[in-house]
Amino acid sequence: MPSAHDLTAPVATPFEGIWPALLTPLTAGLDIDIPVMAEHCLFLLRSGCQGVTPFGTTGEGPSFTVAERMAAVDGLIAHGVPAHRILVSTSCAALPDVVELTRHALAVGAHGCLMLPPFFLKGVPDQGVIDAYRWVIDAVADRRLRLYLYHIPQVAGVALGHSVIRTLKDRYPDVIVGIKDSGCDRAASLDRADAFMSEVKVYVGNEPDLQVLAAKGSPGAVSGIANVMPYLVRRLVAEHDSPNAAADLQRVQAFLAILGGYGMTAAFKGIMAHLHGQPGWRRVRPPLVVLNDAEHTRLKQQMDAFGIDTATS
Amino acid sequence: MPSAHDLTAPVATPFEGIWPALLTPLTAGLDIDIPVMAEHCLFLLRSGCQGVTPFGTTGEGPSFTVAERMAAVDGLIAHGVPAHRILVSTSCAALPDVVELTRHALAVGAHGCLMLPPFFLKGVPDQGVIDAYRWVIDAVADRRLRLYLYHIPQVAGVALGHSVIRTLKDRYPDVIVGIKDSGCDRAASLDRADAFMSEVKVYVGNEPDLQVLAAKGSPGAVSGIANVMPYLVRRLVAEHDSPNAAADLQRVQAFLAILGGYGMTAAFKGIMAHLHGQPGWRRVRPPLVVLNDAEHTRLKQQMDAFGIDTATS
Repeated sequence: MPSAHDLTAPVATPFEGIWPALLTPLTAGLDIDIPVMAEHCLFLLRSGCQGVTPFGTTGEGPSFTVAERMAAVDGLIAHGVPAHRILVSTSCAALPDVVELTRHALAVGAHGCLMLPPFFLKGVPDQGVIDAYRWVIDAVADRRLRLYLYHIPQVAGVALGHSVIRTLKDRYPDVIVGIKDSGCDRAASLDRADAFMSEVKVYVGNEPDLQVLAAKGSPGAVSGIANVMPYLVRRLVAEHDSPNAAADLQRVQAFLAILGGYGMTAAFKGIMAHLHGQPGWRRVRPPLVVLNDAEHTRLKQQMDAFGIDTATS
Repeated sequence: MPSAHDLTAPVATPFEGIWPALLTPLTAGLDIDIPVMAEHCLFLLRSGCQGVTPFGTTGEGPSFTVAERMAAVDGLIAHGVPAHRILVSTSCAALPDVVELTRHALAVGAHGCLMLPPFFLKGVPDQGVIDAYRWVIDAVADRRLRLYLYHIPQVAGVALGHSVIRTLKDRYPDVIVGIKDSGCDRAASLDRADAFMSEVKVYVGNEPDLQVLAAKGSPGAVSGIANVMPYLVRRLVAEHDSPNAAADLQRVQAFLAILGGYGMTAAFKGIMAHLHGQPGWRRVRPPLVVLNDAEHTRLKQQMDAFGIDTATS
């Protein structure tokens, strides 16, 4: 079990270890609950995570405005989360909004940015995806920028093909440092790892792939499950060749099988509410829907049977 | 052929006639070219359209920030487009942004608002879609609000099922006045028309359905093709039972067959550049891509053969 590490220590670029895809706690008015979010970040950092990744898909990122997201990042830092341990997902449909979030992340000293392609229009050509990333990188024009590409085509509706990654890495070798791979298509993930791992680190977004991608050299994960079981996710990266890895992987799969019976983010938040005794964690912003009481009761029973210890799991 | 109508005259609610899904012209810096956009609106209104609909899908709406969209609506009005002939598409992934655009539309006296469900997260339940519309309607809390629901699941990734429409209409009978149906599934559109037309007007977004939906009582369209052939689209609504309608419909289908060889919005903009002799119209914002010169030359030849007269088509 990892001990607490020195949060002021520098972070390697590209990063190593676990940077959970942060859930976003909400107030009764469905605004971001910044103190609770910061408390969760500090809990994860104390639990061996190297950093945190706010506003990805699990974190309902695009459900929040640019102003809400900037205020939350500022708030996390004000509450003691070290800026260099925050990887900000800057994804928006409108590129000037991505530029604003990226500039803000750099201004506050965040580790880097995680960026989806614009996700409203569908069937766009690779050239359009390349142009979108170029728009942001050229507009920001800041040599401190470290960008992680975010591949989750089943949600974004837009994929990052090899030619997109290749073209961007060739043009911006110092900026493009990683890919968060949440494609949930293992064969494609292994292809991507073979094609790019030596130049652009591939990070795991789909936890069943933790072990196989770690074996390919993946140095870490931006994981939803790490919100509730950071130690388990960390072991599957750091000790992927240990004899215990098979049992850990089975546990990941059993957990996902339970979650599959619910909306993913609502279920994660229900588990947070249960584990930490904070009912407010259940809230989601529309278009997501809170688990109803019957679902929440069933999920709690399933979690009690599954067994999560927040100090060791 | 319709003559120019009195632009100061009141507009019925729900609207009748053609409110084109406005293309968004861009400057060399890929900002919205407000003077050209206003000129295009006034051209369409002089060509018998009853109003205009900025920032839908054809208009690349979500590619523009809230501030850009509000400035453009203000600019159209400043350039002489009557506010009550503007139906503002307010669609954003973050609901507070939709609220801001909706309040602005009401403040400037727009005819109404066209709203997509939040379009980032996928697989969301009907209840979540209902909650999203309720969020906006309740936050705006303005009895002037007239809302048109926007159904285009193949792009938004989120459909408006009958239970969503039913629930919203029952709860907000004065607010929910129409549906823009761009689902491109005729059987489903006819079902929707049968279920709702007497209470919630169904407007055509997919032009091959103009005649059949007009026969079901659809009073108009929010049409991309109307940017370039407003008279044709108008006839297919107003004279759907004329003997000439079959030939008009064939023309729509022939036009769409040509467009199908290109990216839709880029092709529309290429046609605008050609018809109006304004090369700047070709520009699109990423993730869309401008037609390359070979494509543009081919499209111009196809349009010359097809034959569009901006004064009569």
